[in-house]
Amino acid sequence: MGMNTQQCRDPMSTAALLAKELAQTSVERDRRGGTAKEERDRIRESGLLTLPVPTEYGGPGHTWPTILRVVREIAKVDSSIAHLLGWHYLQLVTPHLMGSPKQKEKCYAGTVIHNWFWGNALNPRDRRVRASPEGGNRMLFNGVKRFCSGAKDSNMLLVSALKEESNGLIIAFIPSDREGVIIHDDWDNIGQRQTDSGSVSFHDVIIEEEEILRSPGPLGSPFASLRSSIAQLLLANIQLGIAEGAFEETKKSITAFSGQWSADVEDKRRDPLIIQRFGHLWIDIRSAVSLTEEAGTAFQEAWEKEGNLDDGQRGRCTISISVAKVLTARVGLEVTNRMFELLGARATSTKYRYDRYWRNLRTLSLHDPLDHKIQDIGDWALNARYPTPGFYS
Amino acid sequence: MGMNTQQCRDPMSTAALLAKELAQTSVERDRRGGTAKEERDRIRESGLLTLPVPTEYGGPGHTWPTILRVVREIAKVDSSIAHLLGWHYLQLVTPHLMGSPKQKEKCYAGTVIHNWFWGNALNPRDRRVRASPEGGNRMLFNGVKRFCSGAKDSNMLLVSALKEESNGLIIAFIPSDREGVIIHDDWDNIGQRQTDSGSVSFHDVIIEEEEILRSPGPLGSPFASLRSSIAQLLLANIQLGIAEGAFEETKKSITAFSGQWSADVEDKRRDPLIIQRFGHLWIDIRSAVSLTEEAGTAFQEAWEKEGNLDDGQRGRCTISISVAKVLTARVGLEVTNRMFELLGARATSTKYRYDRYWRNLRTLSLHDPLDHKIQDIGDWALNARYPTPGFYS
Amino acid sequence: MGMNTQQCRDPMSTAALLAKELAQTSVERDRRGGTAKEERDRIRESGLLTLPVPTEYGGPGHTWPTILRVVREIAKVDSSIAHLLGWHYLQLVTPHLMGSPKQKEKCYAGTVIHNWFWGNALNPRDRRVRASPEGGNRMLFNGVKRFCSGAKDSNMLLVSALKEESNGLIIAFIPSDREGVIIHDDWDNIGQRQTDSGSVSFHDVIIEEEEILRSPGPLGSPFASLRSSIAQLLLANIQLGIAEGAFEETKKSITAFSGQWSADVEDKRRDPLIIQRFGHLWIDIRSAVSLTEEAGTAFQEAWEKEGNLDDGQRGRCTISISVAKVLTARVGLEVTNRMFELLGARATSTKYRYDRYWRNLRTLSLHDPLDHKIQDIGDWALNARYPTPGFYS
Amino acid sequence: MGMNTQQCRDPMSTAALLAKELAQTSVERDRRGGTAKEERDRIRESGLLTLPVPTEYGGPGHTWPTILRVVREIAKVDSSIAHLLGWHYLQLVTPHLMGSPKQKEKCYAGTVIHNWFWGNALNPRDRRVRASPEGGNRMLFNGVKRFCSGAKDSNMLLVSALKEESNGLIIAFIPSDREGVIIHDDWDNIGQRQTDSGSVSFHDVIIEEEEILRSPGPLGSPFASLRSSIAQLLLANIQLGIAEGAFEETKKSITAFSGQWSADVEDKRRDPLIIQRFGHLWIDIRSAVSLTEEAGTAFQEAWEKEGNLDDGQRGRCTISISVAKVLTARVGLEVTNRMFELLGARATSTKYRYDRYWRNLRTLSLHDPLDHKIQDIGDWALNARYPTPGFYS
Repeated sequence: MGMNTQQCRDPMSTAALLAKELAQTSVERDRRGGTAKEERDRIRESGLLTLPVPTEYGGPGHTWPTILRVVREIAKVDSSIAHLLGWHYLQLVTPHLMGSPKQKEKCYAGTVIHNWFWGNALNPRDRRVRASPEGGNRMLFNGVKRFCSGAKDSNMLLVSALKEESNGLIIAFIPSDREGVIIHDDWDNIGQRQTDSGSVSFHDVIIEEEEILRSPGPLGSPFASLRSSIAQLLLANIQLGIAEGAFEETKKSITAFSGQWSADVEDKRRDPLIIQRFGHLWIDIRSAVSLTEEAGTAFQEAWEKEGNLDDGQRGRCTISISVAKVLTARVGLEVTNRMFELLGARATSTKYRYDRYWRNLRTLSLHDPLDHKIQDIGDWALNARYPTPGFYS
Repeated sequence: MGMNTQQCRDPMSTAALLAKELAQTSVERDRRGGTAKEERDRIRESGLLTLPVPTEYGGPGHTWPTILRVVREIAKVDSSIAHLLGWHYLQLVTPHLMGSPKQKEKCYAGTVIHNWFWGNALNPRDRRVRASPEGGNRMLFNGVKRFCSGAKDSNMLLVSALKEESNGLIIAFIPSDREGVIIHDDWDNIGQRQTDSGSVSFHDVIIEEEEILRSPGPLGSPFASLRSSIAQLLLANIQLGIAEGAFEETKKSITAFSGQWSADVEDKRRDPLIIQRFGHLWIDIRSAVSLTEEAGTAFQEAWEKEGNLDDGQRGRCTISISVAKVLTARVGLEVTNRMFELLGARATSTKYRYDRYWRNLRTLSLHDPLDHKIQDIGDWALNARYPTPGFYS
Repeated sequence: MGMNTQQCRDPMSTAALLAKELAQTSVERDRRGGTAKEERDRIRESGLLTLPVPTEYGGPGHTWPTILRVVREIAKVDSSIAHLLGWHYLQLVTPHLMGSPKQKEKCYAGTVIHNWFWGNALNPRDRRVRASPEGGNRMLFNGVKRFCSGAKDSNMLLVSALKEESNGLIIAFIPSDREGVIIHDDWDNIGQRQTDSGSVSFHDVIIEEEEILRSPGPLGSPFASLRSSIAQLLLANIQLGIAEGAFEETKKSITAFSGQWSADVEDKRRDPLIIQRFGHLWIDIRSAVSLTEEAGTAFQEAWEKEGNLDDGQRGRCTISISVAKVLTARVGLEVTNRMFELLGARATSTKYRYDRYWRNLRTLSLHDPLDHKIQDIGDWALNARYPTPGFYS
Repeated sequence: MGMNTQQCRDPMSTAALLAKELAQTSVERDRRGGTAKEERDRIRESGLLTLPVPTEYGGPGHTWPTILRVVREIAKVDSSIAHLLGWHYLQLVTPHLMGSPKQKEKCYAGTVIHNWFWGNALNPRDRRVRASPEGGNRMLFNGVKRFCSGAKDSNMLLVSALKEESNGLIIAFIPSDREGVIIHDDWDNIGQRQTDSGSVSFHDVIIEEEEILRSPGPLGSPFASLRSSIAQLLLANIQLGIAEGAFEETKKSITAFSGQWSADVEDKRRDPLIIQRFGHLWIDIRSAVSLTEEAGTAFQEAWEKEGNLDDGQRGRCTISISVAKVLTARVGLEVTNRMFELLGARATSTKYRYDRYWRNLRTLSLHDPLDHKIQDIGDWALNARYPTPGFYS
């Protein structure tokens, strides 16, 4: 596909090319589920893995608005792959947010040199992995975690555990093939079927001292707490991509699936009721695009503040992101539902698997409760209170 | 299951028992699709097939409100099976609506004696089956029809074709195993997966004169035109059943899939935001139940008028049915979407296939365009015009 | 207007006649506000005041479904007058619900004999009227109450106070001209402008022992607690009447206020977008009618149980009423907002005061918080819990 | 009020100051209606009238985003005054759009020198004013026009007529006190009550040749057709201002009007249901702000193209504006309706006239049919067709 395998100078074109390629097989892969090994390798070749790595570590140093648009572009045709790529970025920058300068360097530079694909085994709501001390400052991890998106076929893994006695949180990065790490093939859900969001179990996994991040969590500092902002922003962009993809597909296929129902309207494209529905959907999509872009810009500003980021800017930024998250979910639900009313009965054939837009959106949008985000937003709007930093806000 | 295999005296209890049985396997059968042979046989044994047959022909003579509630009860757990049973009733009574007294008798009595399961190959929007004269008053059918719900494994089949020259519509009933009839196994859609709504092809199929209905269509008489009302009313009841089933499942499993998200709310059942959503859904469901019941009652009154049914009563009855159809679709979409927000992320596991409620509803609700029904309703509300009788209104 | 001034045998015809008369002046009276003295006298003459009085006390003994339909019929053209009449019924039957047989008889028979128009000064949320003992078993009332609908120009008044020491609730009925009662002319709100829902002050008002009801409140018994059900049911019916009235006006005047906007549609009555909106509104209105009627029927059954009413039936009845209340508010808001989009810009002239539908609905629907009713409904739907009886549920 | 009476260097501060002043009397003036003479004079003194006048004509040359924000700022507290100011700008720039360089200069420079307040008598849908030739190249206007916002107390007037024989459109600018022009005091509508949007009649009004614009209408050129874009963009900004104003008022007064309804929630500000509603409204408002700002920016770009503006850019710009128009109306309706549910029953007192937000929004949003805008948007979204330039699109 002619993608720059080393480094990606024009990420949007690369993303568009990759999306075109993914679109060829996304229906079949939605059926199959499982690990998208071939597609992951195509991402590896595309050069997209290093987008956020700063130039000082040999990366292209793209900003978040670009990174998020890349993820969204891919989500238009394949929200699982978009999720894998997005979550890769999330893990990749975590040592920057929560680690030492040395750890940050190691992860950024390593990703450029080895073209690491990062996976997730951090899920803080699953408290079943425990850490115990082990000779020197090493720790030993034991237990199991669910919802570990992208762990399968990854090179590096972000992992977390609770200390046996204090329940203190430990976050670390390790090679995915570290001894004792078993990545299970047990993700079989109605949507986001190729995200490998299954479970990972740890059997006496040794974690070296230098792999452990020093500010392991959202409360470390305003900057560290941006990790959840990235996650939420990725979710918003993937949700928006799904909505846009469904809309495009509907537009393209508007006359493909149903004959003439009304004597008054020879062409569905001239049917005022069809046009009216497109009008409403377009307004919805424009709102979602606009607020998602705004959130991306706000985030970039917060990101650039780094150590100087204060609670106020952090708070406003998360509200902006939450607004995008809730709106893209709402709009996405609307589009992925209504597309069937526009296309007609024959569009329900499994040949097209058009339900995957809805299944993907519905699954993704449950990552954490939307109503809690609305509470955060309402509390800000009414009481000028910022959300308490946490793994989901 | 202790069901009366000959005749069903207490249809609602029988339906409830059958539903309980179907619920055991509905998840697996949704996965598998294909013909529900075993379940169709259970229906055969249940005595439910003869519900509408008047006592003068040896049937129990149940009224439509009862018949519709039976279909709805089954739809709560399995909308495919409900569809098959509903469509059976639709075909079974068609000779009563459009045929001669003798044809009516033959079909009613035959169903009681032979426990016939009726299937559909009538789809009037698919104009590809043609009829040509063949010695005497016989006709020969050739061509193919799609969306032939319940043809597979049926005993009797309602069929239609257009006359080769005049394009006049012919509707007839024939044994499903009539030579030249091939029922294809090609229904593979996102919802209503066990309705066998695939295609039937006709190869020089002989139709005897006495099998041809004399008022073949909605314009024959107000009474004949009630056929589409039955179809729409069945759709409304199945849609409502899906909504009720999804609601019940959500209620039952409300605490099964997600841990504590908020420090303020220990129990999801006491979370005001959860309760508020249940309140809204309940209002929606109550509206849908109420208007669907009203439509059933209005239909029964129209049905009893038979030859004396006039355009006005016919018109008001169809509007009442259209209101139920549109509202049950709207409410069903709401419930089958929102249930996931109430249950949480883990409810997306394919183990539960909770998406089937939405997939079934979404597929079924596209039978014919909802917006056209809304136009019919609006034209009545604004201009006091009745819908033109047709195969869909 | 030819109404039976003594007793009303055909309440719906009487209500229709009265509505026709009220419609002549409702625009002007909405402008003016204040006491609808003339219209109250027309109600007095109409015979409608005695509708609920049982035959054993000389009344016509109409059932609640009829009474509620009468109120709704009038609300279609004048929701203030409907409110006054509805609240009259509410006060009139309160001694039946909470009083002794003798008190019940006195109020029923007195209303038949003297054609009493009852007013309200009971508002339990306003705790400013205090009761102190006064020679014998008399009480003395002092203080002020707001939201006393229909007190002005009334003959009898339901009043309440809290006992000075125990804070126990006292409810009594007294002649409106009892010494020390001052009914203020201070209701000037955006809607329901002729309901005189202003304040009443009490200056050493003597309440006789036999005027004090023995079960003064919702907790007295399930039957006593039906008082709030009547209030809520009246609100639902008035809200529905407003919605129906607005819909009728819109339909009637659809072509009156705007010229041709589109070259494609010469007649607004044939505009598919206009028809679509009428379709949606009609579905909404049908839902509201259906559930409001259901609630009326459920209430009548509860009412007839009297002393045998149990918590379960009481609970289900209030849920049915709450559903009607919330739905009529929702539908009413929709209709009273959308009517302007259907009628066009010129319909905003104050000549028509079409905004009164919305202002009346909006004001009425705030009687008590809708969200609390939705919580009650949700708690029932999710947890099978009945609402705690109270003055608002 | 310390406003720069000659020229306004910091328009937003000036607007904020003016808004603060207007807020003192807006309730009373909503009651009174009629001409806001004093407030118009305050605008004259504020220096805001010349905002769009380019520096080459002695004006401050502010861009449209600023001008629109000024109008929106005022609309937050007084949408009538905002309308008058916005419509002033619309008329003031019309000679720039449709006239000769000389006419443009005359109007721009004249406004700077004489501080002209412009009014409107152009309404193209009212075809009752006719133009006939009169000695030389003069024309004589006779007839009447409705919806002439801001004509009263104006200094200059934009007027239009149809030629007696050809029905060709003539647009001209004249001093408001031109002989034969009678500006009627007949605007009495439910909202926008101080916009003086009444009628103007013309009795043998002489129009000089140099007052007649050469490209009198939307079809003259893409640039000339931007006049309707300005009108629509002003409507969107005023609608948004109303929504924002209502939201602010609700937030400010959230605890002012209702006591404690629930034992669980002592403070309305901590009530999750209240917070949830604020969250939803905030998302709505953010969407509206974002898309309205986008439309303003798109318009500025189109405006700057002037003679080089092509149909494509013009088309995309109008779609962006239509999206803002429809969304601000939708959001505005939501906020102005819901504010009452948040504030509670006592907020319906006419003391506050909170219904004015809804009445203003409802009236303004009917300027031209929203559904037609949605059709334009849908036609663009589905068929990539630009709206046909006209006086409303």
